[in-house]
Amino acid sequence: MKLHILGCHSATPRSTVFPSSQIVETGNELLLIDAGEGMQIQLRKYKHKFNKIQHIFISHLHGDHFFGLVGFLSSLRLIGREKPMHIYAPVGLKQIIEMIFKLTQTDINYPLFYHELSSPESEIILETDKYHVKTIPLRHRIYTNGFLIQEKPALRKLNIEAVKQYPEIETWAYHNLKRGKDFVREDGSIIPNEKLTLPPTPTKSYAYCSDTVYKPDIIPFIKGIDLLYHEATFLEVHKDLAAKTKHSTAKQAAQIAKDAGVKFLVLGHFSSRYPDESQFKKEAREIFQNVDIAEEGKSFEV
Amino acid sequence: MKLHILGCHSATPRSTVFPSSQIVETGNELLLIDAGEGMQIQLRKYKHKFNKIQHIFISHLHGDHFFGLVGFLSSLRLIGREKPMHIYAPVGLKQIIEMIFKLTQTDINYPLFYHELSSPESEIILETDKYHVKTIPLRHRIYTNGFLIQEKPALRKLNIEAVKQYPEIETWAYHNLKRGKDFVREDGSIIPNEKLTLPPTPTKSYAYCSDTVYKPDIIPFIKGIDLLYHEATFLEVHKDLAAKTKHSTAKQAAQIAKDAGVKFLVLGHFSSRYPDESQFKKEAREIFQNVDIAEEGKSFEV
Repeated sequence: MKLHILGCHSATPRSTVFPSSQIVETGNELLLIDAGEGMQIQLRKYKHKFNKIQHIFISHLHGDHFFGLVGFLSSLRLIGREKPMHIYAPVGLKQIIEMIFKLTQTDINYPLFYHELSSPESEIILETDKYHVKTIPLRHRIYTNGFLIQEKPALRKLNIEAVKQYPEIETWAYHNLKRGKDFVREDGSIIPNEKLTLPPTPTKSYAYCSDTVYKPDIIPFIKGIDLLYHEATFLEVHKDLAAKTKHSTAKQAAQIAKDAGVKFLVLGHFSSRYPDESQFKKEAREIFQNVDIAEEGKSFEV
Repeated sequence: MKLHILGCHSATPRSTVFPSSQIVETGNELLLIDAGEGMQIQLRKYKHKFNKIQHIFISHLHGDHFFGLVGFLSSLRLIGREKPMHIYAPVGLKQIIEMIFKLTQTDINYPLFYHELSSPESEIILETDKYHVKTIPLRHRIYTNGFLIQEKPALRKLNIEAVKQYPEIETWAYHNLKRGKDFVREDGSIIPNEKLTLPPTPTKSYAYCSDTVYKPDIIPFIKGIDLLYHEATFLEVHKDLAAKTKHSTAKQAAQIAKDAGVKFLVLGHFSSRYPDESQFKKEAREIFQNVDIAEEGKSFEV
């Protein structure tokens, strides 16, 4: 699993920085989280294939998190998309998009499904063979969700050398071995699974938490995960402003990461008031060592 | 008067090219025509001050001509705009923008005026001391207007050397001299205006015609103007496609420029199917010599 940053700044796009948008690469799929203005420019710049995206998650209905969406959906139409697209977003976005398409006389010629979110509780909003996505209720000036993406345990790997030593194990049995079952001979005797297989690749988990005020009650959701992206709009020197606008400081984000025991923290959603963004990392490091700052075009291994 | 191209490509933004948007600089004012996605990024890149824009003209409600607008209006709010903003656009845009602001709980804290267009006839939509703006009815797949911006005749210039030779002309008389009036002495004798003043700077006129099928009945509106921006989505080899999608070819745009006797033609709104855009210029030149192609960041003296 990999995280690719398309935009990680608050407010409005400038020549070199973009508002919130990112890609989570899992297997051969790209999940899009938030869609700030200019997002499709960034997708093209960093050569992410539009067609690999089938699921879009929108945290909240502030412009810097979704003003790039309708242009992207229109582009998909122009390039002849046929695959369905699923959008998971707060109630209201569907109404906006449908009205724009109606007034611009745009026929979306691929299946577009809206999954409208309004629950104040965490819920599983997408589940596939390989992963599930769960909302993390955040607290901001408007209804907002973070998203937790958790891979499901993969299959165990066949230890081919070991398996070959037992001619009685035919290929039809591999399916169950990978799922952790012992091999049972016709006479009822058993070859234990651990003799025949190797452990699966460990599963990975990633959480996106933006925008939110410092909210320690998200910790149970993100306990021990591999990678946390947490907003840090402000530095601690502006913590009153952070509280007032319902954003977090770098220090607060680091405190959440520390208390949740996450493996790595990425900070983002920086206010444009700070000319030197390395300050965010410096401030967070006083609390939590494994931290880096997001940057347009940067990727992080989960 | 100057034309600054922010975006001049059809459809969707890519890393280096942007959909329709341009600035007409007249005096100390910037008029924004169309607002394709990424427009505010381009404004920043080319250092056009947001605050000098007070009038926005939207030709039609296809996404590549207005998807950048709501982000721009939101940015103005963030930077604390106080001046009013006027938007001239087809009926429907107001509804879209107001709905987005309602659902995103955005309070626009500067005066925002909508001038909704629906007339099939040309009309004057803005008149100031210095210029007026008139719609040019175009024919596209959806209700569309071009815009003609005409400067008003400026004041004559005082010929200070000449004026100084007549001590009886006091400064209070300058106002009328600049307006072309003769000076009348107390005894009723006259000093003719042409002895005292020089001709004003010639007035300039510019027209934006995009998107439209080849439509010769726009010629009376643009007769003899200084600069015409006309769409050329396709080359003549795709003229059937141009007719079907209600766009023009480079040759057709050149024919319009020639028949209207305009001084200079700029082509734009290029389809992304053509890797070499100099072909548009080449094709147009077979009909009309004074032609160039638009390009992001390029400026044209009107």
